[in-house]
Amino acid sequence: MSSDRSTWKIKSSRTANQAHNPIRAIVDQLKLNPNVTKSLISLSIGDPTIFGNFNVDPSINEAVAKQLNSYQANGYPPADGTLQARKAIAEANSVPSAPLAPSDVILANGCSGALEMCVNVLCNEGTNILLPRPGFSLYASLAATRFVEAKYYNLLPEKNWEADVAQMESLIDEKTSAILVNNPSNPCGSVYSREHLEAILKVAEKYHVPIISDEIYCDLVFEGNHFFPMATLTSTVPILAVGGLAKKWLVPGWRVGWIMIHDRNGVFAEINQGLHQLAQIILGPNSLIQAAIPDILEKTPASFFESTIQQLQDNVKLSVEALTPIDGLVPVNPQGAMYMMVGIEIEKFKDIENDVQFSAKLLDEENVVCLPGECFNYPNFIRLVITANRGRLEEAYQRINEFCARHRK
Amino acid sequence: MSSDRSTWKIKSSRTANQAHNPIRAIVDQLKLNPNVTKSLISLSIGDPTIFGNFNVDPSINEAVAKQLNSYQANGYPPADGTLQARKAIAEANSVPSAPLAPSDVILANGCSGALEMCVNVLCNEGTNILLPRPGFSLYASLAATRFVEAKYYNLLPEKNWEADVAQMESLIDEKTSAILVNNPSNPCGSVYSREHLEAILKVAEKYHVPIISDEIYCDLVFEGNHFFPMATLTSTVPILAVGGLAKKWLVPGWRVGWIMIHDRNGVFAEINQGLHQLAQIILGPNSLIQAAIPDILEKTPASFFESTIQQLQDNVKLSVEALTPIDGLVPVNPQGAMYMMVGIEIEKFKDIENDVQFSAKLLDEENVVCLPGECFNYPNFIRLVITANRGRLEEAYQRINEFCARHRK
Repeated sequence: MSSDRSTWKIKSSRTANQAHNPIRAIVDQLKLNPNVTKSLISLSIGDPTIFGNFNVDPSINEAVAKQLNSYQANGYPPADGTLQARKAIAEANSVPSAPLAPSDVILANGCSGALEMCVNVLCNEGTNILLPRPGFSLYASLAATRFVEAKYYNLLPEKNWEADVAQMESLIDEKTSAILVNNPSNPCGSVYSREHLEAILKVAEKYHVPIISDEIYCDLVFEGNHFFPMATLTSTVPILAVGGLAKKWLVPGWRVGWIMIHDRNGVFAEINQGLHQLAQIILGPNSLIQAAIPDILEKTPASFFESTIQQLQDNVKLSVEALTPIDGLVPVNPQGAMYMMVGIEIEKFKDIENDVQFSAKLLDEENVVCLPGECFNYPNFIRLVITANRGRLEEAYQRINEFCARHRK
Repeated sequence: MSSDRSTWKIKSSRTANQAHNPIRAIVDQLKLNPNVTKSLISLSIGDPTIFGNFNVDPSINEAVAKQLNSYQANGYPPADGTLQARKAIAEANSVPSAPLAPSDVILANGCSGALEMCVNVLCNEGTNILLPRPGFSLYASLAATRFVEAKYYNLLPEKNWEADVAQMESLIDEKTSAILVNNPSNPCGSVYSREHLEAILKVAEKYHVPIISDEIYCDLVFEGNHFFPMATLTSTVPILAVGGLAKKWLVPGWRVGWIMIHDRNGVFAEINQGLHQLAQIILGPNSLIQAAIPDILEKTPASFFESTIQQLQDNVKLSVEALTPIDGLVPVNPQGAMYMMVGIEIEKFKDIENDVQFSAKLLDEENVVCLPGECFNYPNFIRLVITANRGRLEEAYQRINEFCARHRK
């Protein structure tokens, strides 16, 4: 036996070393010395439940309570999810142009778990994946832990965060294993038109690159916009679309996500099998919630979704009206989801060098938390979560206004 | 652009190709033509909830209902689990010889998810891990999907499935990243003595190999035996112990597991950090159940556990008494958990060549399902799950008796 075994030297794996959450690292820099004479207002966490103004519909709770009281939903569900849940999800999402059978649906531990499976099945070490910039940081973390290179396509704020399709195309090479599209978008709140999605699909088709379509914010879309599931716009490009209960039903903590396999020409045969194999390793989400999914999908009243969207829309309007007049800030009007990106004209400030410093000083001086664009790989913006109630938002924007006035040249 | 991009040829990843569930593949072979004139009796699934005789305690349901009705437990928990849940788990498992703080506990998606994180953090591609044979097939699947070599140490049926410690020691080389110990054991139902666990720890200490201790069946131990958490028997060997709600609380579908990091000399500093980093990628189990964990751990009455163990013990007694007289079968008396391994003296049968054939013909002719030892890497045994009610067990053993009589030389 070599001397390697003569003492304890236990190193964490390459994978664990890559499992780095950029948001956490950046947020840790912010927490210097918040001004506690003012109450904390957090506009940083994409969790609509924390303020108490976005609550689950009672019908959802009843659906879970029914399963709890049945004593029939405590055992192991099948690895890819119960047939009833997969059937309900397939039926709720199936349309003639993109039909789904229960066997096309796989349940996962949250939409994050669904995305992990998609990256796991499509990408080998040494390949690359095209990710949006700005984009949700989990995408890069998943790529990094699989030693898959992240290549970034640019989203253009001046075009409501549409992708720069020509630049996206220029990134594709022999080793490109997937394009990830996030619509509606976190952090941008953008909702893509049919034409823009078709332009992306055209690139995917030209180079035969499959798409992972993160549609967790599906249907959280404001008046005058329309959400198109990507798979409904193509009959040739194979798509793994992911969704879940987290945002639309306002239960992110429940950790229920799913993959919908869209493959109308059999080019995903191996991928389909691979996903079912991956599902066997860990099994899916909580059995009580799985059992409640048919009720949740069928019985949640339309008024619940309408009220969620109305409240988000009102908050967006308030936010844009409050921030637009502030010299040095350039809000980009969102069309859906629960986020807004706000540009910072850094040259207008006398003692703020970048978005991280902007967020850090804002927390220090005003006890308002917002994530710097750096967290989404996009400097000189900040991301605001617009789910706080009106009073808190108004207060936050008042403080931001005073903060900017104080720091402007 | 190379011609590689001129057509759709999408291959599933190396990882997905490795994500093979040996049980599924073997069970698929069994399902030929079951005798449907007899009712199905399944002794194959390690899920105590399926027969209706093992139910959760009402106090557990109340704990979850309380959270559901609070509307306060739907948001994202911290990535490593809520502080309250980690505190409750630490307190329930902390003893003076193996103290645990909340920061030593990480929640995961089931005990399977906890094991996945342990393998992920300790093992790099190209290293090896020591696994028990017979053993739970997930261990090998986790190793395979990380391209970690599985090396098997033998459990000895004639010594109540103790490990062959000398042979275990002979497997260790420079690339050994961990020893996995499963006590009480699936599929064996063995419960190790203090002396035996200390013998394994001695090997780990000699070669400085950390231990993953799968203790999901902790406390499911029959009269006259005692469960020792491995970490309580060493002050030097670093241990990742995993547990969960699945078996002891009879809710395997709830998918709540945890890792307890035992590291009294700081040799797991990197591992500790690595586990917290891995937790950030997917987040942990369902928020409602996390919030209920303090109540579940504190308020479940002792009588619930006593009744579970009494019922398991009665079923073991019945099983051993029914199977011992059958010529050709050699049951190994279990000391805990919910399983029993039964040896098959293949040479005594005229038309059965191995355990897979034994299980297949038993299903064909008697509609009784049991897993062949092959599923646990241990031929010429079958594994019985002894959680069915007395009537079903008696019926199953009567059919097995007739089956053996018909096939004996």
